[in-house]
Amino acid sequence: MGAPPAQASYICARKFFTMARILTGIQSTGVPHLGNALGAIEPGIEMSQQAGNESFFFIADLHSLTTVKDAATRKENVYAVAASWLALGFDVEKNFFYRQSDIPQVAELTWYLSCFTPYPMLANAHSFKDKSDRLSDVNGGLFTYPVLMAADILLYDADQVPVGKDQKQHLEMTRDMAGALNNAVGEEILKLPESVIRETVQTVPGTDGQKMSKSYGNTLDIFAPAKVLKKQVMGITTDSTPLEEPKDPDTCNVFTLYQLLANKEQIAEMRQNYLGGNYGYGHAKKALLNLIMERYGEAREKHQELMANPQLIEDQLQAGAEKVRPIANSVVERVRASLGY
Amino acid sequence: MGAPPAQASYICARKFFTMARILTGIQSTGVPHLGNALGAIEPGIEMSQQAGNESFFFIADLHSLTTVKDAATRKENVYAVAASWLALGFDVEKNFFYRQSDIPQVAELTWYLSCFTPYPMLANAHSFKDKSDRLSDVNGGLFTYPVLMAADILLYDADQVPVGKDQKQHLEMTRDMAGALNNAVGEEILKLPESVIRETVQTVPGTDGQKMSKSYGNTLDIFAPAKVLKKQVMGITTDSTPLEEPKDPDTCNVFTLYQLLANKEQIAEMRQNYLGGNYGYGHAKKALLNLIMERYGEAREKHQELMANPQLIEDQLQAGAEKVRPIANSVVERVRASLGY
Repeated sequence: MGAPPAQASYICARKFFTMARILTGIQSTGVPHLGNALGAIEPGIEMSQQAGNESFFFIADLHSLTTVKDAATRKENVYAVAASWLALGFDVEKNFFYRQSDIPQVAELTWYLSCFTPYPMLANAHSFKDKSDRLSDVNGGLFTYPVLMAADILLYDADQVPVGKDQKQHLEMTRDMAGALNNAVGEEILKLPESVIRETVQTVPGTDGQKMSKSYGNTLDIFAPAKVLKKQVMGITTDSTPLEEPKDPDTCNVFTLYQLLANKEQIAEMRQNYLGGNYGYGHAKKALLNLIMERYGEAREKHQELMANPQLIEDQLQAGAEKVRPIANSVVERVRASLGY
Repeated sequence: MGAPPAQASYICARKFFTMARILTGIQSTGVPHLGNALGAIEPGIEMSQQAGNESFFFIADLHSLTTVKDAATRKENVYAVAASWLALGFDVEKNFFYRQSDIPQVAELTWYLSCFTPYPMLANAHSFKDKSDRLSDVNGGLFTYPVLMAADILLYDADQVPVGKDQKQHLEMTRDMAGALNNAVGEEILKLPESVIRETVQTVPGTDGQKMSKSYGNTLDIFAPAKVLKKQVMGITTDSTPLEEPKDPDTCNVFTLYQLLANKEQIAEMRQNYLGGNYGYGHAKKALLNLIMERYGEAREKHQELMANPQLIEDQLQAGAEKVRPIANSVVERVRASLGY
């Protein structure tokens, strides 16, 4: 197994400094849209830039099998998501960026943990209840999903996991599983992670005013060809106030989106335009489109470049896997030894 | 990964000859007793000696975690079981003999399969219902047990799995999972195994007349120290017919056990002794003990030798793992590629 020396010394160093290891899973549900960028990717990148902590980010492509069965879709989705993080400036040197399935030890740990997970705990998990109501394919993977999620976290001795309120139960289950195993073997084999509840996640409205979501078909696809994106922006729903009349910025979807991207001066100016009249929604949409193009121009180019040459993405993911593998191996070895394997 | 050349050519050869690959899991529940030897180990060894097929036997130590949490117990159990097969003459050169946990790819395949397993199929499995009624620790592992069992079989492209009637449902579930995955990816990635229902398994009565079972505390421990074994044989329940009176062999537990081990002449002679009178149960028990010692004398020595030097057992298990690893790797690679991993 032999960890590279740099890695080994790194693992040791961790014991002497109080550096927190922060772990985040990234869903691999396809090319991210503006809502994903503002709500998850950019805050994630910002968090990863804070000094003093070390960040583990992984693309959860094993989880995706519970709903996505098609091989080409999965591959494409993983690359599209990875390319987006890379294009938006995520620093893979500083961070640990890897694909879940490249470290299959997570499945092994899942089996061990499942034997320390009371069945009713899984049967009563909110996420399973939600999904089994909603989906037609209710499979065993959906049921054991929280155990795989726990393994994702425990396999890397994570200290902290930033989660939305809806994920808090999964963190509690993770702590319960780790505690049950530790308790059974009489030793602290697995590190109990803390959940860090994210402050209100930025909600980004879609083109119809509902929350932006692929499933509503109301996305602004910042990585799509310019024509497509333009059509989406121009298609944002507005009321039918005539061009010449004043408009209420605070009830307008275009203005809300503009606010999320513009600086103070730009926002103040746009508000004046709305209130002053003789400023149509078409003008506002064009201003919004310009802002998107300005903000994401470089990222769009980079994304296109990466998607045209997936080997570049693959290389980054492989390098990330090499970086985390020694950690995963050492945790699994600890667990195996404690259980008599 | 590189399979040793012999192995590689072997895998190829399999395609040209109609050799059936027969797979059998061995429970690792501790030192086997006479009931295990006559009911499972000896028939297994006999089957493995038949020419024309190739036999995979593995010690199911991952399954054992659903009920056994103690590390030392698990290790001891695995060695005790492996030593028994080796001591009773199992040919590890001819066969594939390995420990389940040495090939952790089985856990990876378990995750893939679980996403092709309808939840109700697992919830309705007989074995889960039985166990959740009986056991106090009803954990997630017990629930997903049939998926791990399917992975055990499918990971090695097994053609046939000898099963008792109670295991038939698990084989059907295995075929369903494999079929669902093959169907989803549009290719025969996993080999659908056939179940081979074992003819009536030899039922061996315990010292109290009930089926011999560790949980009833009525075992004859053929690998225990001579004193212990003698005490067990002498403790076999009989009726209180006085020594001088004739006795009915067909209702006597000692005679039934004697029949299972003796040759025709010995059985005929013992029947005469019973019917003739002046032959006590003590005499019969001594004759039974002698027979056991004669039949298992060599195996007892060999077992003791192995248990005193577990490294010998470990070496055999490691060699077995090396033999099967290339097969497991190639099957997992096939599955990964088909699913876009």
